[in-house]
Amino acid sequence: MAIIPTYEIDLVKAKTSKINDVDFNNLTFGRVFTDHMFVCDFKDGEWQKPQIMPYQAMTIDPSARVFHYGQAVFEGMKAYKDEDGKVFLFRPDQNFERINKSSARMAIPEFPKDYFFKGLETLLKLDSEWIKPGVGNSLYLRPFVIATEPAISASPANEYRFMIICSPAKAYYNEPVRVLFAEKFSRSADGGVGFAKAAGNYGAQFYPTSLAQKKGFQQIIWTDASTHDYLEEAGTMNIFFRIGDKLITAPNNDRILDGVTRKSVIQLAEDLGIECEVRRVSVKEIKDAAKNGSLKEIFGAGTAAVISPVSAFEHAGDVFEIPEEENSYATLFKSTLLNIQHNLAEDKHDWRYEVK
Amino acid sequence: MAIIPTYEIDLVKAKTSKINDVDFNNLTFGRVFTDHMFVCDFKDGEWQKPQIMPYQAMTIDPSARVFHYGQAVFEGMKAYKDEDGKVFLFRPDQNFERINKSSARMAIPEFPKDYFFKGLETLLKLDSEWIKPGVGNSLYLRPFVIATEPAISASPANEYRFMIICSPAKAYYNEPVRVLFAEKFSRSADGGVGFAKAAGNYGAQFYPTSLAQKKGFQQIIWTDASTHDYLEEAGTMNIFFRIGDKLITAPNNDRILDGVTRKSVIQLAEDLGIECEVRRVSVKEIKDAAKNGSLKEIFGAGTAAVISPVSAFEHAGDVFEIPEEENSYATLFKSTLLNIQHNLAEDKHDWRYEVK
Repeated sequence: MAIIPTYEIDLVKAKTSKINDVDFNNLTFGRVFTDHMFVCDFKDGEWQKPQIMPYQAMTIDPSARVFHYGQAVFEGMKAYKDEDGKVFLFRPDQNFERINKSSARMAIPEFPKDYFFKGLETLLKLDSEWIKPGVGNSLYLRPFVIATEPAISASPANEYRFMIICSPAKAYYNEPVRVLFAEKFSRSADGGVGFAKAAGNYGAQFYPTSLAQKKGFQQIIWTDASTHDYLEEAGTMNIFFRIGDKLITAPNNDRILDGVTRKSVIQLAEDLGIECEVRRVSVKEIKDAAKNGSLKEIFGAGTAAVISPVSAFEHAGDVFEIPEEENSYATLFKSTLLNIQHNLAEDKHDWRYEVK
Repeated sequence: MAIIPTYEIDLVKAKTSKINDVDFNNLTFGRVFTDHMFVCDFKDGEWQKPQIMPYQAMTIDPSARVFHYGQAVFEGMKAYKDEDGKVFLFRPDQNFERINKSSARMAIPEFPKDYFFKGLETLLKLDSEWIKPGVGNSLYLRPFVIATEPAISASPANEYRFMIICSPAKAYYNEPVRVLFAEKFSRSADGGVGFAKAAGNYGAQFYPTSLAQKKGFQQIIWTDASTHDYLEEAGTMNIFFRIGDKLITAPNNDRILDGVTRKSVIQLAEDLGIECEVRRVSVKEIKDAAKNGSLKEIFGAGTAAVISPVSAFEHAGDVFEIPEEENSYATLFKSTLLNIQHNLAEDKHDWRYEVK
């Protein structure tokens, strides 16, 4: 597959649009999808001609490996529209690189860059009415790859499907969240797939998270599986701690997702003259800081949630409420990011990608 | 859902059978399926009326959570036929209990016991021609549950599908396998989902296993993720070591699958007067035993593979060939198990379950 053939997409347009049935002021995350989807199958050792077609259910064999062995990866991205109707993506190169890193770890063939970008752009142009202007509005894009080969041997499939589906979105978490620091359950192991957006990483969190929710905490901050002494990430978000005026976040490793919002926050901190340490963060350090009053903020950073402030955490039976911070970094980073994403602020790092 | 309604299955029979197209002497594992499949959907808070229908592809929304978050579990079982045409399952109660343990960990609703057994039995009676008599022949049964709700929010689904598909099988690994002891990659973490037959546990092994295969080793023996000093399981099999005349296998924990074949081997060892220690096994102990000649055998135990002897292992660049053992425990356990499964030997523990 050294040479990618001349680019073409088979395009079948939807006869009618569903857009008028959608209440854009009352969106539940990830439940409504636009009129079209992008589909590209891998078989006979190569990615076939991509297609865009009306969003629809698909036919798949019950023995497809995705159902049995979770051989599947995904990405999360957003498209934004400015007041002039221009459409932007945010650092899509990062998502492209990461989906292929995830795929490599899950023994899935990498997807060609031009297919990825042309697919995204063609889809966004077709469904551009679904992207509403205004800060906070976006179109959530979900590229994903699933193993479709109909055979249940426990080995990498020979057939895959790459798809992009799109769902109009408001910010994922609107209210500050209360979190629990994991003491027993784990998200991932050294040498595992935690750094990848592998499907199974997410389903594995549902049960521990449901236990946390029963205790009144919406999310879990995962700790290292070996000792549970170090804070890692929140499963759908990376996590930042502010002690005094200093920001701290865990370093990337093979257990922690290399988040696009995370790395953007680290860069913005540098731009804004905020000290940001990328190093291990212990539970003890954060509890001590909460006790002595130097813990000013905790917030999550992720594409779906953007920046999600944490209002309280629990560990070993101790609950710490985090007082609202007047000069909040979370608020600053959120507005800075949203302004860049929506073409309302200078984009000195070339993060915006206009879909023309 | 306290009271399960009177049992009924909606049954649509296949108009013709595919059985004459199948070469039962040349079966690739998991590629050919029988004429029928069992399907039961969960929605509105309960399992709906089960169905048996012709094996066929199904229609599913691209936003189904199984594709994105790996919310899926499975089981592996086999049906056997004796020379009188009687059909048997082997300890199906164990598979039933385990699929619900897996489901609980993956936030999937548990499946009712009578649906599970009536589904299996009705399916096996319909497709009984697909079960060939003779030791080594079996019908591999794959119960599995997938999250089907069409919404990509990262939370447990409200809709699921439980299915059973069936594939005629010969023994999974016919030749002794060469294995690699994991030094860097991991299968699961403490507090994770390694004990569950969660789909994502399997896809996550494909890439490290493909690297092992390039080095000439078919399988990986996973070690503990924290230190890589202790041997755990083989991903599709539990693992037994024989030092002198003593058998050793790792204890169950939240990283290791509670294998039905594993627990049967432990019981058979007791029956046969073979000492079996269930305790942590270090890499060092096995390497030392290989060096001093006391390591007599390593073998895997699992439903698909039954008993799979290991002929060599590699660790840290050292390769140890395991000489063929004349009075092999692997051979003894394999024939003892197969004879019980095929109704050729006394079944003192009531492991056989006749499908009448």
